[in-house]
Amino acid sequence: MPLQRAAVLAVGSELLTPSRIDTNSLMITEQLNLLGIEVAYKSVIGDDREELAAALRVALDRVGLVVCCGGLGPTDDDVTREVVAQVLRRPLAEDERITAQIRARFASRRMEMPEINRRQALVPAGARVLSNPNGTAPGLWLEEAGRAVLLLPGPPRELKALLMAASDEILKPRSPGLSLVRRVIRITGRTESHTEEAVQPLYTEWAKAEVPIAATILASLGQIELHLSARAVSRDRAEAAVEAASRQVGDVLGLDAYSRDGRTLEQVVGDLLVERRFRIALAESCTGGLLTSRLTDVVGSSRYVERAVVAYANEAKVSLLGVPGKLIDEHGAVSEPVALAMAEGIRASAMVEVGIGVTGIAGPGGGTPEKPVGTVAVAVVIPGATRSRLFRFVGDREHVRIQASQAALDMMRRMLGP
Amino acid sequence: MPLQRAAVLAVGSELLTPSRIDTNSLMITEQLNLLGIEVAYKSVIGDDREELAAALRVALDRVGLVVCCGGLGPTDDDVTREVVAQVLRRPLAEDERITAQIRARFASRRMEMPEINRRQALVPAGARVLSNPNGTAPGLWLEEAGRAVLLLPGPPRELKALLMAASDEILKPRSPGLSLVRRVIRITGRTESHTEEAVQPLYTEWAKAEVPIAATILASLGQIELHLSARAVSRDRAEAAVEAASRQVGDVLGLDAYSRDGRTLEQVVGDLLVERRFRIALAESCTGGLLTSRLTDVVGSSRYVERAVVAYANEAKVSLLGVPGKLIDEHGAVSEPVALAMAEGIRASAMVEVGIGVTGIAGPGGGTPEKPVGTVAVAVVIPGATRSRLFRFVGDREHVRIQASQAALDMMRRMLGP
Repeated sequence: MPLQRAAVLAVGSELLTPSRIDTNSLMITEQLNLLGIEVAYKSVIGDDREELAAALRVALDRVGLVVCCGGLGPTDDDVTREVVAQVLRRPLAEDERITAQIRARFASRRMEMPEINRRQALVPAGARVLSNPNGTAPGLWLEEAGRAVLLLPGPPRELKALLMAASDEILKPRSPGLSLVRRVIRITGRTESHTEEAVQPLYTEWAKAEVPIAATILASLGQIELHLSARAVSRDRAEAAVEAASRQVGDVLGLDAYSRDGRTLEQVVGDLLVERRFRIALAESCTGGLLTSRLTDVVGSSRYVERAVVAYANEAKVSLLGVPGKLIDEHGAVSEPVALAMAEGIRASAMVEVGIGVTGIAGPGGGTPEKPVGTVAVAVVIPGATRSRLFRFVGDREHVRIQASQAALDMMRRMLGP
Repeated sequence: MPLQRAAVLAVGSELLTPSRIDTNSLMITEQLNLLGIEVAYKSVIGDDREELAAALRVALDRVGLVVCCGGLGPTDDDVTREVVAQVLRRPLAEDERITAQIRARFASRRMEMPEINRRQALVPAGARVLSNPNGTAPGLWLEEAGRAVLLLPGPPRELKALLMAASDEILKPRSPGLSLVRRVIRITGRTESHTEEAVQPLYTEWAKAEVPIAATILASLGQIELHLSARAVSRDRAEAAVEAASRQVGDVLGLDAYSRDGRTLEQVVGDLLVERRFRIALAESCTGGLLTSRLTDVVGSSRYVERAVVAYANEAKVSLLGVPGKLIDEHGAVSEPVALAMAEGIRASAMVEVGIGVTGIAGPGGGTPEKPVGTVAVAVVIPGATRSRLFRFVGDREHVRIQASQAALDMMRRMLGP
């Protein structure tokens, strides 16, 4: 019987507090959907043997596949392994190979394995072990009377690797075979409603298509995402439908749609810099290193990021970036001329093609009636072109910083692009 | 019987997609906890009569209070009202007063009430109606054989108003009157298992205490969190118990416990800098601005962050930071002497008290057998003290960068602290 419907159980008392939320189930849902498996419901359960056992019994009664994440750690409050063994009536035994792997992992950091980590080597009889490249807790797969249980560790990096492995080796051959393909189109320079207005006419067309496309718009700071999805008997057909739809969106939104292949804005900028063989130097004030951090997050960015300076104090702007003190006196530190002088200064001293300057008021203090919190000047200089702009962002310190770095990356992208 | 334990059921198919998450349950959990009611588990169910009925039956079987949010709208896929009536075997009847209120709400916007909105005036026999000041769907309260069900609308603004009303008028008199207080202790410099080993002896003591303390350990990159909670007849007693327990943890873990009041590591460092009236300048290589970005995330950081330089290229290390080229040739760019020269260079040129240098290999490229990806040298110079250390972090680029910035902040904290 193919696995049609799944339940996701996230285990951890911290996920039942007012300040923490289960996000692992999103990654699991996405992967299951790709295999055509639907998530019938999901639950969050504390580190509580009785509650978990009850939830597991209900799930085994209602769906073909139960995915549990979390509660596989070495400590007393990690109960998933034991509860699953108990509910399925399988004895637990230590798997010496797992113990050896855990021991080796500690040894590689020149540490001795604490005795309690042996608990992570306990395996219910008949379970298939998925070894964990990023941590000590292995994943486990159990089948019983047409029902299946997949146990995955809670830390997202470990979860992801094991979910992918389980997906390829175990779930795919047991899945119903209807492929669900999703595509994310990333957009800047438009509001959510303007994006919706522009794309709306396509919705009707997509709903009637042979392979219908479902669309959702999601807004975050300085960015809109349009999520497209299609379900078809073959992955290729679903892919083709989604690709055609995403091309239509690209035609409608033009340059505002900066990525149709999952690349982030910083990756798009990085690729443009590589393509044009440009190197870049950055001068940041209010973004405090965030812009550089985003650019250098990209693999291979050392090829084009030459240097960056975070100049918070006016003095640092003068001495490090060669911004004339007179310019600051005249226009204020948060102004287009100063942003430009910062971009030109860092570009000249680093002897690179692209210079960027960002100066602004992130808040909560420092605002004035003429230049309130959220005022940010951005300047970009590339060979043959110079641009600067004064923005007014709304939100708290973190929001202003994110939007300012987003605006600076977007300005670069538009200047460097075709 | 007072309501001790609750389940929260969030209803809505969109909450079972990979891109949306239930956050309403956080607000509900917070309010219930304030009344001393614990959330035993929570679930997300689609707009599906059968699944919702099953979830409701399970919940009524396990807890004293079931809070459902969502699915009270006027359309066909809003099924909560009907499913609850069916499960509790209560006939539904239109409440004319609610219809009148909904009609008036539409009229106030000069609109006529669509006929489908009459569904929102349907009330299960015996239910108490909570009128909704911010929308059309009223809240509903039902009691049956010592169990209670509270139905709330999904839009957060409507949910909040009705939750507060239900809390004051209905839940408070029925709640156990116990206050639940939580506290998070943040720890660096120990693994999860070593933290557990050290804290374990306290668990037994806490379990037997007059006000028992519950504890959970959570691990993330370069950081462990210990969550404590206590329940007592008065908020003050619960606070006192948690405070005493957190002090015990502080005694056991010593300097490794860096925060018992919710402050982040960067806030703790910032507060130490303010306290000692020190200013700081940073020289980053592999962390690419992340360290500075974390420090400047803190409100008021412009008081102590003077400047930062991201020097990716060796040339930039020499020209911007005055690192002797010979030192790089001799020890390699990723070495303690170079990290020290970076820290000293930026400290001298910025003329501040604290200098920090970070140089390493974040990967995926650039590793060698002697210095594999994840090798990071960190150096901190403060008045009267200098420290450097070579780390070996495990993980991909992002993880190495996060751990390196964490290690640098931690080194500063330990040097600046008492």
